[in-house]
Amino acid sequence: MHELINGLIMNNLKNGILERMDDSAIMENMHAGRIAMTTDSYVVNPMFFRGGDIGRLCISGTVNDLATSGAIPYALSLSFILEEGMDIGELERIVKSIASTATEAGVRIVTGDTKVVEKGKGDGLYINTCGIGHIPDGVDISTYNAKENDDVIITGYMGNHEVAMVKARELIDFDIDVESDVAPLNKKIEALLKKNVDIHCIKDPTRGGVASALFEIAEHSKCETTIQEDALPVHPGVRSVCEIVGYDPLYLANEGKYIIICPSGSTKDVLLEFGKDAKVIGKVGKTGEARLLYETAYGGIRRMGMLETTQLPRIC
Amino acid sequence: MHELINGLIMNNLKNGILERMDDSAIMENMHAGRIAMTTDSYVVNPMFFRGGDIGRLCISGTVNDLATSGAIPYALSLSFILEEGMDIGELERIVKSIASTATEAGVRIVTGDTKVVEKGKGDGLYINTCGIGHIPDGVDISTYNAKENDDVIITGYMGNHEVAMVKARELIDFDIDVESDVAPLNKKIEALLKKNVDIHCIKDPTRGGVASALFEIAEHSKCETTIQEDALPVHPGVRSVCEIVGYDPLYLANEGKYIIICPSGSTKDVLLEFGKDAKVIGKVGKTGEARLLYETAYGGIRRMGMLETTQLPRIC
Repeated sequence: MHELINGLIMNNLKNGILERMDDSAIMENMHAGRIAMTTDSYVVNPMFFRGGDIGRLCISGTVNDLATSGAIPYALSLSFILEEGMDIGELERIVKSIASTATEAGVRIVTGDTKVVEKGKGDGLYINTCGIGHIPDGVDISTYNAKENDDVIITGYMGNHEVAMVKARELIDFDIDVESDVAPLNKKIEALLKKNVDIHCIKDPTRGGVASALFEIAEHSKCETTIQEDALPVHPGVRSVCEIVGYDPLYLANEGKYIIICPSGSTKDVLLEFGKDAKVIGKVGKTGEARLLYETAYGGIRRMGMLETTQLPRIC
Repeated sequence: MHELINGLIMNNLKNGILERMDDSAIMENMHAGRIAMTTDSYVVNPMFFRGGDIGRLCISGTVNDLATSGAIPYALSLSFILEEGMDIGELERIVKSIASTATEAGVRIVTGDTKVVEKGKGDGLYINTCGIGHIPDGVDISTYNAKENDDVIITGYMGNHEVAMVKARELIDFDIDVESDVAPLNKKIEALLKKNVDIHCIKDPTRGGVASALFEIAEHSKCETTIQEDALPVHPGVRSVCEIVGYDPLYLANEGKYIIICPSGSTKDVLLEFGKDAKVIGKVGKTGEARLLYETAYGGIRRMGMLETTQLPRIC
């Protein structure tokens, strides 16, 4: 089984470094200076869903986390925990999805590992990826950097990934036409940084959604942030599900969206890079105290917090 | 549960970088030049065994893999896949073991992740670690570098980890006094490199043991290697188990040992650094063809290959 898996991986992902199969991968010419490092394990259930699969998810999640600090992804590791009896055809589809997403993101997989556990001690496949990237000189992007009067942008529709997972698990029995948004976004950040667009914060609103991510930024930057109900971009299919099931799209997970906080002079460039569904949804207010405020279409204001209730497990 | 786990991790592992809890960890002042990267998932069963546990194993395995290329471990990531119902007391012991082993190895954990899966979809705890390290200028250590007349050294008794796992799983019912050798070895390699000791290859003889590791080196360096039966260091407890069960200690896994291949002028320094159980077990012969030869105490010679039979699963 190990040989079969190694064969699959080598055929689809091989490069000069991975091929050496040494205990550690060696990379030449690392830039001096700051590097970013991030890891996630992926236990998504089911492994295939509308718009993506665990393979696309693990590469996107890792490069997207790296790019939140402005890092340019440099190398990824890839580790599989396989349950005995995993369908090899499915595994091959996943490895091919990893390969195509890595190509799309412009990143290579340099080292990996495979472990097999007994039937009933896993669930098909768990994947861990870890990524490192180089942060260009002069770039300073962090959730601690939001400033008064900054614009708050969401780069597209909210909640598509989580609603696609609800549908994939057949937890709702009506037809909806919602795909997961899972996608690598690092190239777009790279393009903005190349144009010297000034960005203060980038955050990946995964589990807990846009509201939890904004709350964390407010806490880190000790600022008040107000978002406007009527500015929030929500796909009609996601809106239907939310109305019927009672979800709030602000708390639904995304896997191909960023919250970007920037001075208003940068807003046009950010919106242009991310396309027509990207919207300014709010504004950073005064600093000093962390508060997330929600202004309804009728002008009412309420405070929001982190996601507290138990949510769908294993969405990523 | 997530909060409890995060609390445990922060209390035991916190440092300035991990504490920021950003989507990616930022590290300053990375050296320019070559870096090494390695990853492993740990699914060892049981999680606690004589001489160690999954926590000590995951840190040791990662720093040991990094040091095989002469890299000085710089930062590690740590990711947990927890099965619902995992005992929190056990988890705390494991996190403390991770902390003390990381301190021993002189490495920090800068980023992490925790996922929880349903009961019956995991097995207590699976851990993934990924590590990066900087390779000092002038260091060139690789399994591709064995040269004719080099000495082959094993840095201590062979097979202790795997025999400890056999015992921990109660697969044998007699008393043996064998502990796993799991330990971080990077500081010893660092000390040798600081003294400019010339080393050609370092290899971690984990699954498949010393023989499989030597066979891989022979293939990578295209050389003949001969090892001497009467030079092999084997703990009496391991020898007893091998005699009774029919294991060959050359194929048993180690988690705190290195094979070091070096010019004979370096041998004294290597043996001194690793202590009295480190032994020269053989010699690299002529290059051109990959062959691993075993010379018995009676002078007979046979060829050896990689481990082929199915071995104990989940030993790391």
